[in-house]
Amino acid sequence: MKVFITGGGGFLGHRLARTLLDRGALAGPDGRPQPVTQVTCFDTAFPEHPDPRVKCVTGDLAAPGAIAAAMAPDTAAVFHLAAVVSAGAEADFDLGYRVNLDGTRLLLEQCRKLARPPRVVFTSSVAAFGGELPDILDDATTPNPQTSYGTQKVIGEYLVTDCTRKGYIDGRSLRLPTIVVRPGKPNLAASSFASGIIREPLAGVESICPVDPAETGVWLLSPSKVVEAFIHAHDLPSAAWGTRRALNLPGITVSVQEMLATLARVAGEHVAKRVIYRPDPKIQAIVRTWPIRFRTERAAAMGFAADADFESVVRAHIADERINV
Amino acid sequence: MKVFITGGGGFLGHRLARTLLDRGALAGPDGRPQPVTQVTCFDTAFPEHPDPRVKCVTGDLAAPGAIAAAMAPDTAAVFHLAAVVSAGAEADFDLGYRVNLDGTRLLLEQCRKLARPPRVVFTSSVAAFGGELPDILDDATTPNPQTSYGTQKVIGEYLVTDCTRKGYIDGRSLRLPTIVVRPGKPNLAASSFASGIIREPLAGVESICPVDPAETGVWLLSPSKVVEAFIHAHDLPSAAWGTRRALNLPGITVSVQEMLATLARVAGEHVAKRVIYRPDPKIQAIVRTWPIRFRTERAAAMGFAADADFESVVRAHIADERINV
Repeated sequence: MKVFITGGGGFLGHRLARTLLDRGALAGPDGRPQPVTQVTCFDTAFPEHPDPRVKCVTGDLAAPGAIAAAMAPDTAAVFHLAAVVSAGAEADFDLGYRVNLDGTRLLLEQCRKLARPPRVVFTSSVAAFGGELPDILDDATTPNPQTSYGTQKVIGEYLVTDCTRKGYIDGRSLRLPTIVVRPGKPNLAASSFASGIIREPLAGVESICPVDPAETGVWLLSPSKVVEAFIHAHDLPSAAWGTRRALNLPGITVSVQEMLATLARVAGEHVAKRVIYRPDPKIQAIVRTWPIRFRTERAAAMGFAADADFESVVRAHIADERINV
Repeated sequence: MKVFITGGGGFLGHRLARTLLDRGALAGPDGRPQPVTQVTCFDTAFPEHPDPRVKCVTGDLAAPGAIAAAMAPDTAAVFHLAAVVSAGAEADFDLGYRVNLDGTRLLLEQCRKLARPPRVVFTSSVAAFGGELPDILDDATTPNPQTSYGTQKVIGEYLVTDCTRKGYIDGRSLRLPTIVVRPGKPNLAASSFASGIIREPLAGVESICPVDPAETGVWLLSPSKVVEAFIHAHDLPSAAWGTRRALNLPGITVSVQEMLATLARVAGEHVAKRVIYRPDPKIQAIVRTWPIRFRTERAAAMGFAADADFESVVRAHIADERINV
């Protein structure tokens, strides 16, 4: 079966592509495993050395015809990860809507034209939530995003659900916690610091923490767990989703202070001391609107799982990146 | 101040225009009443004899440039009523998204370009709700539409909220109950029968009831109450809305059976007997997804009001249309 990944040049998308090729199979329409014969990654840019097994297509999601040209007509699985990130969409309103809304619509339109309705896994975000919130969110909490990025993600969920109801796709939307530890470089996401304060010190460089460590909590999930979640979301039968196609993924709640204490414990005080506090009101204002505690019973019942604790998240990053500590 | 009404050729839009001109004032940015100097109605079609005080502009909401050409740069109040109705949007997926989503975006884009951010009243719908629902919905119930129309309305709410947060508009979205009794002719809305079974018999003609009278309930509001609600929604200060820009309007819950009993009581058994039962599974399937019981405390606290009872709704229609009973 053929797989199509938007944002497939990004860290998570490319990792998903590699994992699918290593794994070699995904559930087919009848639920039985089918061999993965092709993985196409679509993105505006790719790593310098992409996995040679992956078909990389460079293009603009929001350019009419770009997806149509890149997606094989017999594509069976689509993972939609491409997005202008939170601070980026906040800084450029038009760009955010162009990519995150228009791009998603163009993708769904193309999916509708495929030989048969594909399974579509859409990456939404806990940025869907905001405003006056309960202390602990659950599956009944109404999205009330306080950023354009969050708004675009919620709209994407509704589009995926409507296209599913119409039978054009078999869609599933996952509201991702903040993914920690992301490898690579800081990006424009307001949550970029949450990985930076672990990643940079471990790489021997300083990192700026723009938020108050004691007062800031993060609802997070590791890269390997979220890639597992993408695949699990795809492989679940349609009936497991019913008419509720959007799901809050499990995660763990950790304060920035606990994150730094864990880093010190695993890698040493001298490593944790590479984090410099420099408050950024803009970042703080965005991060403050994100919820950090969830009850995710529905996801648990569907077989999704979070990391055991933050220490295992840090140790997984150290192993992935082959860091000597 | 200048007022712009999309769907202003339709029954509600034109009635709103007339009411605004009769009333002569709307709250200005400082909350104090300002004289209404111009009411522009934008629509694809207009009544044969539109109110001569209204400026009627014929155009396609989703055609780029159409709204820009029609809307005065110093427009202060926008009422967005235009939409492809529920059964229409369900029958033609692309048309529904083109008008109800693309059209709304084009309208909001134009609002953003005005001399100062206008107040925008957006008409959403209880079609926002569906799927597994509690017996009584309230302000915390998460929209889960089971039609493309409902999906497009929810997306419109999120766009209005995001544009408000960004300071481009001062937006307010109202989730309308079914409006009963609409004058004029039946339309493609799945709810068309709810007015038809009162209006047609009173006009001396037969009307088809496509749903089971005992099992079908309707959450409804009269034309005069909803026009009052539009104006009240506009005139409330921005602070009254806060970050929650979408509101379930109050209404009353009436079974189709009670509606017909009321008609018989007010106009006579011979009139009520003009209703013919002819079940339509398509209409029933849509109507069944609509909720009929709400707690609307927030709207009540904000000063919105429903009709006293269904009899007053019928009597208002008889008075409006100058019917002899």
